[in-house]
Amino acid sequence: MSGYAGGELARLLLRHPRLLDTPPVFVGRLGENDALPVALTSLHPQLSGLPHADESTVAAFSWKQLQRESVDILFMATPHEQSRAWVPEALAHGIRVIDLSGAWRLQDEHHRAVYKLQDMDPALAAKLQSEAVYGSPELHGPAIAHARLVANPGCYATSIILALAPLVRANIVDLDYGIVCDAKSGVSGAGKSLVPTNQFMYAADNLSAYAVFGHRHTGELLEQLNLAQDQLQFTPHLLPIPRGILSTMYVRLNERLALEEIQSRFDDFYTNAPLVRVRRSPQLPQIQHVVRTAFCDLGFELSPDGRRLVVVSCIDNLLKGAASQAVQNMNLMAGWHETEGLL
Amino acid sequence: MSGYAGGELARLLLRHPRLLDTPPVFVGRLGENDALPVALTSLHPQLSGLPHADESTVAAFSWKQLQRESVDILFMATPHEQSRAWVPEALAHGIRVIDLSGAWRLQDEHHRAVYKLQDMDPALAAKLQSEAVYGSPELHGPAIAHARLVANPGCYATSIILALAPLVRANIVDLDYGIVCDAKSGVSGAGKSLVPTNQFMYAADNLSAYAVFGHRHTGELLEQLNLAQDQLQFTPHLLPIPRGILSTMYVRLNERLALEEIQSRFDDFYTNAPLVRVRRSPQLPQIQHVVRTAFCDLGFELSPDGRRLVVVSCIDNLLKGAASQAVQNMNLMAGWHETEGLL
Amino acid sequence: MSGYAGGELARLLLRHPRLLDTPPVFVGRLGENDALPVALTSLHPQLSGLPHADESTVAAFSWKQLQRESVDILFMATPHEQSRAWVPEALAHGIRVIDLSGAWRLQDEHHRAVYKLQDMDPALAAKLQSEAVYGSPELHGPAIAHARLVANPGCYATSIILALAPLVRANIVDLDYGIVCDAKSGVSGAGKSLVPTNQFMYAADNLSAYAVFGHRHTGELLEQLNLAQDQLQFTPHLLPIPRGILSTMYVRLNERLALEEIQSRFDDFYTNAPLVRVRRSPQLPQIQHVVRTAFCDLGFELSPDGRRLVVVSCIDNLLKGAASQAVQNMNLMAGWHETEGLL
Amino acid sequence: MSGYAGGELARLLLRHPRLLDTPPVFVGRLGENDALPVALTSLHPQLSGLPHADESTVAAFSWKQLQRESVDILFMATPHEQSRAWVPEALAHGIRVIDLSGAWRLQDEHHRAVYKLQDMDPALAAKLQSEAVYGSPELHGPAIAHARLVANPGCYATSIILALAPLVRANIVDLDYGIVCDAKSGVSGAGKSLVPTNQFMYAADNLSAYAVFGHRHTGELLEQLNLAQDQLQFTPHLLPIPRGILSTMYVRLNERLALEEIQSRFDDFYTNAPLVRVRRSPQLPQIQHVVRTAFCDLGFELSPDGRRLVVVSCIDNLLKGAASQAVQNMNLMAGWHETEGLL
Repeated sequence: MSGYAGGELARLLLRHPRLLDTPPVFVGRLGENDALPVALTSLHPQLSGLPHADESTVAAFSWKQLQRESVDILFMATPHEQSRAWVPEALAHGIRVIDLSGAWRLQDEHHRAVYKLQDMDPALAAKLQSEAVYGSPELHGPAIAHARLVANPGCYATSIILALAPLVRANIVDLDYGIVCDAKSGVSGAGKSLVPTNQFMYAADNLSAYAVFGHRHTGELLEQLNLAQDQLQFTPHLLPIPRGILSTMYVRLNERLALEEIQSRFDDFYTNAPLVRVRRSPQLPQIQHVVRTAFCDLGFELSPDGRRLVVVSCIDNLLKGAASQAVQNMNLMAGWHETEGLL
Repeated sequence: MSGYAGGELARLLLRHPRLLDTPPVFVGRLGENDALPVALTSLHPQLSGLPHADESTVAAFSWKQLQRESVDILFMATPHEQSRAWVPEALAHGIRVIDLSGAWRLQDEHHRAVYKLQDMDPALAAKLQSEAVYGSPELHGPAIAHARLVANPGCYATSIILALAPLVRANIVDLDYGIVCDAKSGVSGAGKSLVPTNQFMYAADNLSAYAVFGHRHTGELLEQLNLAQDQLQFTPHLLPIPRGILSTMYVRLNERLALEEIQSRFDDFYTNAPLVRVRRSPQLPQIQHVVRTAFCDLGFELSPDGRRLVVVSCIDNLLKGAASQAVQNMNLMAGWHETEGLL
Repeated sequence: MSGYAGGELARLLLRHPRLLDTPPVFVGRLGENDALPVALTSLHPQLSGLPHADESTVAAFSWKQLQRESVDILFMATPHEQSRAWVPEALAHGIRVIDLSGAWRLQDEHHRAVYKLQDMDPALAAKLQSEAVYGSPELHGPAIAHARLVANPGCYATSIILALAPLVRANIVDLDYGIVCDAKSGVSGAGKSLVPTNQFMYAADNLSAYAVFGHRHTGELLEQLNLAQDQLQFTPHLLPIPRGILSTMYVRLNERLALEEIQSRFDDFYTNAPLVRVRRSPQLPQIQHVVRTAFCDLGFELSPDGRRLVVVSCIDNLLKGAASQAVQNMNLMAGWHETEGLL
Repeated sequence: MSGYAGGELARLLLRHPRLLDTPPVFVGRLGENDALPVALTSLHPQLSGLPHADESTVAAFSWKQLQRESVDILFMATPHEQSRAWVPEALAHGIRVIDLSGAWRLQDEHHRAVYKLQDMDPALAAKLQSEAVYGSPELHGPAIAHARLVANPGCYATSIILALAPLVRANIVDLDYGIVCDAKSGVSGAGKSLVPTNQFMYAADNLSAYAVFGHRHTGELLEQLNLAQDQLQFTPHLLPIPRGILSTMYVRLNERLALEEIQSRFDDFYTNAPLVRVRRSPQLPQIQHVVRTAFCDLGFELSPDGRRLVVVSCIDNLLKGAASQAVQNMNLMAGWHETEGLL
């Protein structure tokens, strides 16, 4: 609730046309309770002046309050341990959940190990995990509409999966070569903690690679794209900008293809996806065009020999990579149009 | 030693032409001792490859070691309480001190109160304070040359004092109006501590005023310019850049003056100051031209009615505002040319 | 239409809840006609995906088309010479105008001289000029509601006038001292032209003052605040950020006042102004909180002697300083709520 | 002479310890002659105050003057057509040349085609081309020492070649997979021309890929690393920072190797290269550590399966990528120590 994605989520919900008469209820998490309730604008001063914002408070979390307020859908922007613990209870109370953490994104236990989750009841955890839907509306829209538990995707994962799914699903990628994903993210992706790498003097005028061979979004990539460990390589970098991700992907094709065939693959795949904008090759996306929007922009170039593809993908990590994708999922779950409150 | 100014000071000393054969000795302060000695380049990786840098270590502080190494001049880039405590001992050991903290800059007790210093021996403290020389080479060069204790100026103070001294000393300023000093500094000025305002997400794409009516460099300004409290107003702002200060000063003149008279005041005042560059009006300094240099750039414009002056001053806060000014002082104290190792 | 403010204006109009069924008509100016009509998204690719955006074109300007489309209100984001020439014709066609240029902002001929306007018919120009309303909704709301011609304020002028009007109108400012306005703006304020000062390598990691004693927004300040030339001094600076203005104003009071009196002046003055947010002293606005919003944030600090005030004001120069203020004016002219489409 | 690299080169030469008594002679190129001679500091105000800088002028180019001044070595920071035309004449006058353009870097005619060079005398051009030495001191030091014509490498090429040479020359790379080079450069790499992509509003808070499959440094990479077209893929990106390149390279190994074997390859290869700093894996270089230095920093990580390598390389594009590498070459040609004037 107090983080960057939490602030963006609050902003989107306060302005959501379907929620103007029933403003969202904000609750904090356990560790924050001493200081609660507090004014929403004391955590996020930039929200002041928005509808209902100045009257809103962030109350201490309690199931009772959620029920008293007849909450239907609970967004959780909490650490993954917290999400893992609370989701069973929320569902038991009849509350559907959109979880922004990594807690429920991974079906494969081996991939999930990166989060070091300790579940109280493994059987229940397994049952709920199998029920959880990966919250990528472009890939799993119908399942999301009926889901009780939506695992909102990671920011890097969103940018890469949306770029590669149209190719991988069409079986035109030569997976023997391995796909290289070189991704670059603005600093808000690292959250609000007071660590040296989040300091201005570290990040400004700089660029650095990190978590090479070990970023925890890797599992999502492999599961959603149905790839084996050595078929995809992902290196994140820290960009000296506040928001935005650009991912550059290097793909070998099974056979020589024409540019127009690739273009059609992308266009067709996203023909009903109003929040994915496919550029005409050789136009490529850039971060500036997606920052502060709910869009994912995609573009590509094909090598002269027709065998190698460079795909570029851009999102705002706090929006399509977190808060606006969560609202997009809420829209689907509530039966509203996917883009309500997002354009 | 581990801060930004300490790193710049180490860089300047390692490359100093007079010190190539007798490289500087680096010592840490008490609180850091557990981890010492450490390689200099573990604290400042960017120094690797400079002469002597990769062999240098930062040892635990001890007077014995300083004497064993026959240290003549001790630079202290320590918190002001520390500086206040150690200086008497250093002088007693026959070691001259250039102190980069605010501990010894202020003669007026009232001004010094801002640092909440608790001296063990008030009489000794008073004696040393009266002996301390404010380390502005352009204003106090001869005194610095013979000083045992040099109080290196604050960064904001340097940029403002050098801009105003030629005018105030010439008695052409109408002080009844008060001088307005609107200063803007890059983020390194705030040091390395892990506070929210030092974070990239706070400082980037932003600007904010702070410490209005209460910045602790104010005392230096008043003392060095010989002004009363209400004759000068100073507001600092946090700029979204790593390094550099630009100060804009608003001055009323006693009488109508011609542009050429003002220009001559500046030119003459700094005619023997190789590290102050006076621009021809209406050219004005900009931060870009001084970053990573030891220069202070000055410029001004005169109002059409010849009565109001806008003076602009730029320095690199870590160099002319700290480390290079300290080396400039060292050069004077050692009898070398002021600019050695600084161009 | 092709500039930064034009792009923001298009975005606001496309998303405006009252215009969803009658999307705006976009026309280019004469010099651009060769290349027209063009897709709106070819000029502003970031708008793609917004309602009606991908079907919208920018057509060559013609009065006939405006009449065919039954245009009620014409926004002009054109050079001031152009605005000066077209406004009489628009009004003659019964079309109300919101002009974003400086052409119609100034009643005083002397102030207007800075724009070097050459009017064909001085009598008509004088008549229209006297009819023109300065488009500051917080100061001239009722007049704007009925105006045929609204002169949308300059960006710097907006930030300074809103900060000073509550004080100057209450006659609590000692004008003998002169008000100092030190303003800082992001690079978009300088427009899109290919000049060296708009280059990344000039503006990044830099800060510079410009147009000292000569910025053309000065006339607006003097007229709207009813001040004489030497009662206000305004110096703009170029900030290394894309968007946002922070102005710092230095004011002497006629008499010693209590903080609460000042706070009430601001609170009361803006009690019915939903797009001005007054902070509690000693909280001060910062650029980050207003960027990409339609708000003006105000705050202040009072000196210990109760006689000097530092007022800080922040806006997004492209929104409250241009496009959103224009839409705010449109809302008033159309009888809608001031904030429609702006929160 | 008026570009960014030209300014850095002037700075390095003015401060070069071997040239303090015989300062460099600055000449402009033909197209600039109308305005010449001009003060050096009018082109590069930041140089003011450096030894000889304020007396230096940039004169109109003439062979006579170069001979009168007994110029031994001519640096050419000119467009490649110009370099191609003048080099034969310079050599004929007995002047050795360090050319910073791409004119003489490529032996393979096919690679050179990208520069669209039109040589007056193909035979002479071929002769000189075969004599030209690629100015990478770490790869061709002895040849550079005796060269008459040194082709200073491209900035991207420098960062990539130094990272890959130790691996490729050791034949441990599986070239069937192709090497992916994802490179990111600060804006100064694009030069000073007034094009939209050099504007602050385009580059700031942004990231974009460009010249995919077609950047003209590709030929240098292939020739220096002795690779075929499809064995290396290079995509440059425009970073929102003034200076610095970080290249991330993805390499498959022929066989499983231990981390220590890779580390030794790098360490041994650069054991006598004082301006290449090899980091201990898993430490990786970052741009901040090389900006404003003459160093190239290298680092790598090895995949858990020991078959895939990510290599990261950083340089300052204006220094090791242009001006300081040129001075390093001059040092070798003059028989001085490689690092003189560069630390």
